[in-house]
Parts: sequence; structure tokens; C-alpha cells
Amino acid sequence: MIRIAIDAMGGDNAPLCNVKGAVLALNESKEIEVILVGREKEIRPLLSGETFDADRLSVVNAEEVIETGEPPAMAVRSKKDSSICVGLRLLKDKKADAFVSCGSTGAVLVGGQLIAGRLPGIRRPALAVLMPTAKGMTLLIDCGANVDAKPENLVQFAHMGSLYMKYILHVEDPAVGLVNIGTEEEKGNALTRETYPLLKNEPGIRFLGNAEVRDLPSGICDVAVCEAFTGNVITKMYEGVAKTLFSEIKGAMMSSLRGKIGGLLVKPSLKKLLKTFDGSEYGGAPLLGLSGLVVKAHGNSEAVQVKNAVLQCIGFSKNDLSEKIIQAVNKDQ
Amino acid sequence: MIRIAIDAMGGDNAPLCNVKGAVLALNESKEIEVILVGREKEIRPLLSGETFDADRLSVVNAEEVIETGEPPAMAVRSKKDSSICVGLRLLKDKKADAFVSCGSTGAVLVGGQLIAGRLPGIRRPALAVLMPTAKGMTLLIDCGANVDAKPENLVQFAHMGSLYMKYILHVEDPAVGLVNIGTEEEKGNALTRETYPLLKNEPGIRFLGNAEVRDLPSGICDVAVCEAFTGNVITKMYEGVAKTLFSEIKGAMMSSLRGKIGGLLVKPSLKKLLKTFDGSEYGGAPLLGLSGLVVKAHGNSEAVQVKNAVLQCIGFSKNDLSEKIIQAVNKDQ
Repeated sequence: MIRIAIDAMGGDNAPLCNVKGAVLALNESKEIEVILVGREKEIRPLLSGETFDADRLSVVNAEEVIETGEPPAMAVRSKKDSSICVGLRLLKDKKADAFVSCGSTGAVLVGGQLIAGRLPGIRRPALAVLMPTAKGMTLLIDCGANVDAKPENLVQFAHMGSLYMKYILHVEDPAVGLVNIGTEEEKGNALTRETYPLLKNEPGIRFLGNAEVRDLPSGICDVAVCEAFTGNVITKMYEGVAKTLFSEIKGAMMSSLRGKIGGLLVKPSLKKLLKTFDGSEYGGAPLLGLSGLVVKAHGNSEAVQVKNAVLQCIGFSKNDLSEKIIQAVNKDQ
Repeated sequence: MIRIAIDAMGGDNAPLCNVKGAVLALNESKEIEVILVGREKEIRPLLSGETFDADRLSVVNAEEVIETGEPPAMAVRSKKDSSICVGLRLLKDKKADAFVSCGSTGAVLVGGQLIAGRLPGIRRPALAVLMPTAKGMTLLIDCGANVDAKPENLVQFAHMGSLYMKYILHVEDPAVGLVNIGTEEEKGNALTRETYPLLKNEPGIRFLGNAEVRDLPSGICDVAVCEAFTGNVITKMYEGVAKTLFSEIKGAMMSSLRGKIGGLLVKPSLKKLLKTFDGSEYGGAPLLGLSGLVVKAHGNSEAVQVKNAVLQCIGFSKNDLSEKIIQAVNKDQ
């Protein structure tokens, strides 16, 4: 039985969608136990109308809530009774195998390191985001809150990303690309130029070389390695361009009668496409390199995204990814 | 009369489209004189079938060509008789007012600094790219080849970008945003955190604060300031996402009869939209901060894009932007 703690209070649609997502996950998998963490007096009434196996659901009270705008380090230190801190302590105390939150990314990242701690040998945990591409999915790592990483951090990201793609998404021999603004080895900034030779000579990963940013959406690699500022620019640009384009396309279609009729006809195909390009369908983003699994789901997650993030934890726990990460990063030391 | 030197040999469609673009520009504006720089024996035959005012067109021979893959600094130093080097020398010797190239961005940037030189007080010239948005255009600066810029460089980029938007695109009081992965002042990496207070206290620019990457495509600022690695990630991500989405949309529509019929009906609106989102329609990217105007057009430019890049030079020269840049960056020293 895999025990998954869920931050019931984090995210735009909390606690309603978090609770509903937990129930959906419970009903979809018999392998999990769910622990809802948050204000019990708000959570209990939301459970009253739902049907689920009550033996596999518990509530752990946490009175405080960390808001998205709060400086993460200070929030984690001062709000010990917040759903994020309490949930992460369940992980640390081995009372849970995984923790899922739609709350403040910064607080989850800082709290994950302060409370759950890093895996032995890991210098910096990383947030890995699945990015939909024309060919499937690319794991972009790091998209976290700790920017200005060093070359040796990026090598560890490459290992963690490769293991994730291999064991969780069943990609046979994942290809790793170094995110860059050109393909030649000497291209890029100080960080990419120093990282390239390290990745090239690192055993245990299949390094393709530089992955040009322009080629990422077409799916040129399985794992795209970068430091977190660049990772955030990429995911946010993806989101921004896709959103703007879809809204402009809608506007363009509505601008004429001909377009309106055509628009009605193409709507089902476009909806399906939009869904393919919606990363949240695939569950949350794992924070790799921590002791215990922490998954960050999007702040605007609905119940179905919470459910997907919870179910994602099953594969992670079953494959004992943490142990594999420890082996990979410590073997050459 | 504004004298514009054109690199006839640079780009994927050279020399044909470069020569045709020069002729189109000559026929569209009576204010310009065009100097085609490159292999005269290849250029002359292409001119033979064209109609234009021969008094305003000349050819300056340059036997060598710098290829896109060559390391820029070495290419500029060793190929003195290349179209890029010869064209930039015309600029330096005041035999031309502007130089337009579709060739190697790196070589144009390096050559621009080595041959034409920087404006007094400018520490680092910057490549400014116009990015189409839902509201119009945002100037993204720097998208050049010199990465790892310092905070004081970004302040100069903000001035140059504001002056460009004001005098060339006639934006009344351009709003400047610092490209970042969050809106709060303390967000981002070491560079953005150090740059923020400098921009906030800098007279002569209207600083909006951090511009979240996700909001760039919707057009939240007129000038978006960043260092070149980030600038390149943004423009290439824009290009990559738009290209992939449009191709997937086409595929989605073709997957059913209903979609095919609808696709035919919406095609004209989408084509118009695609054109709005195609940056090359607006001419090349100016390299701001050099002595003399250098414009870099896209490597895959057709004749019409070459023409647009050439015509863009008129406004630049007429407004004496270089003088305005010198005043702005030297006033507080």
C-alpha cells in the first residue's frame, strides 16, 4: 500500500478540488492510501457527500496555510503548522511515501529540502516538468526555484531525468540534450560551455549534445537539461505562446461568417489537440533528489489534475526511483 | 539620400533574394541609395533582368563569404575580403549609412564591434528583435551572441530599446519590463535581482518592473530587457512553439472529413493570423549601440524581408538614433 499525503489547502481551487481529486484517486487505485493534510473542519464537510473506501483515507489537521505570494523560506520557517510543513514532516517521519501539493512552488521546494532533506550525494534537488511535444513528452529539468546552478548540478539533473523517463515513463534509452541557443559545442553561456564536456564524458547517460531551444517543441530529446531560470523561461513561454495563439486563432475564426462555420467544424479536432498540449493532463511535476517523493501540481489544478498527480506517485514508489538516483550519482565518487 | 550597403552573399537565399530585395527597396523609396556588397560576377547577371534607377545602385566587390557555421571571431579576422567585412568597412569609412545582412549573426555582431566600433559610452551593443504580440510588437533586447551580460549592460539596453520604440515605431512613452520568472522584485537570478533596482532608479526610462515570461506574448510591455541567452531562448521558443502548434493544428484538421471541410473554411483567417505572428514581416533586427546602423535580417529571408530590412533603415537614419543613444547613456556620467 502506497501512502500519499495531499496538501488539501494549496492551489487556486483548494480545498474542494484537492479533496475531490483525492477521492477520485482512491476510487481509481486500490494500491493507495490517502492522507489529507489541512484544516480538518473544512475538509470533513467536503468528504460527506462522497463515496470512497474510508479505511484508506485519513485527515491530518494543519491549521496554517502558506500563500503563493509569501517569501518561501520565511513562510516555511514561521508556519510550522501549515499543510505544506505538516505534509513534508509525514514524509520525513516515514508516515507517508509521497507528498502532493498544488501550493506555492517556492515553499514546497524550500520545505522539501529543509524538512524532507536531500538524497545522499545530491547537491541540488530539481523540479522536473513534462513538456508535451509533437512526438510525445520531453522532461525539462530543472524548472524549480533555485536558479544559477553549477555545471555539476546539471550533470546530476541529467541522471535524475534519465532515470525518471526510463522507469516512470518507460522510455527505453532516454536521450539527454543540453538546452542551448545553438548546436555547436562552444555555443551558449559560461554554464553551458562548462557543462557540455562533463555531460559528454559522463557514464550512464545517453548525451545527444546541445538541444536547440527552437527544436524542443518538436521533441528532439527525452530529457532536456538546464538551470532553473532557463527552465522557467521555457515552460512559461510555452504556456504563454500556446495560450495567446489559441486565443488569436479563436478570434481570427470569429471574425467572419465563413470562419465561424469552419470554426464549429474544426472545434472537436482542436479541443483534442489542446488536450495533448496541456501538460497538466499528465499529473504534477516531481521534485527529484529529495528523500521521499514530492510532487508539485499546477496551482490551478482541478480535481482531475490532482488525481493524476496522486496516481503518478504509484510508479515512482514501486520502482524505488530514490534508490536508483542514489546509485547513479554516487557511483563515481 | 540614405546610403545602405547590403550583404549580397549572406543567408540561405543569397545572392538571388538579396539582390531582388535591394531592387524592390529601390523601387519603393526614392530616399535610398543601395550598395550591393559581394561577388560582382554573381551579382551583375541577377540585375540584368530587373528595372530600377541605376544611378542609385552600385556594386562593391568582395570575393569571400563567411558561412553560418564558422566561428565568428576567427572568420571576421581571416576573411577581410568577405561581404560582411567589406560592408562594415563601408560603414566605418562613412561610405554607407547602414549595413544590412542576412548572414551569420555571430560574424555580424563581432564584425560590427571590431570594424564599425561601438558608440561612445556603450559597453555592449545589443541585437533588438521585434516580437509580435496580441497587442502589437514588443522589442526584445538583447538577442545577440554575447551572453552573460552585466546589470549595467541591461540598463543601457533599456535606454536603447526605449529610444528605438519611441523614434522608429512611434510608441509615445515606451514601457520597459525586465524579463523574469516572477513579478516580485526579489524574483529571478543574480542578474535580474541586481538589475531591478538599477532600472527602478534610472531616469529617462519608464520601468514597469518584472515582465513575467508567460505574459510576453500577450504584449505587457513595449521593451523587454534581458541578457542574450534568455533573449535567444525566448525568440527560439516562440518560433518553435508557433511552428509546432500550426503544424499540429493542420494535422488535427486533416484527421477527419469534418475537420478538412472546416479547415478549408478557416484557412484565410489563419493565414492572415500567421502573417501577423511572423516577425520577419517587420524587417530585420537592429544591432543597437554601434557606430552606424547595422541590421541583421533572418537567415532564411526572401526578397520581401530583405526589402523590409532595408526600408527600416530610413527611419533610423532620419531620426539620428545614434546621437540620441549617446546622449541617453552618457548623461549621468
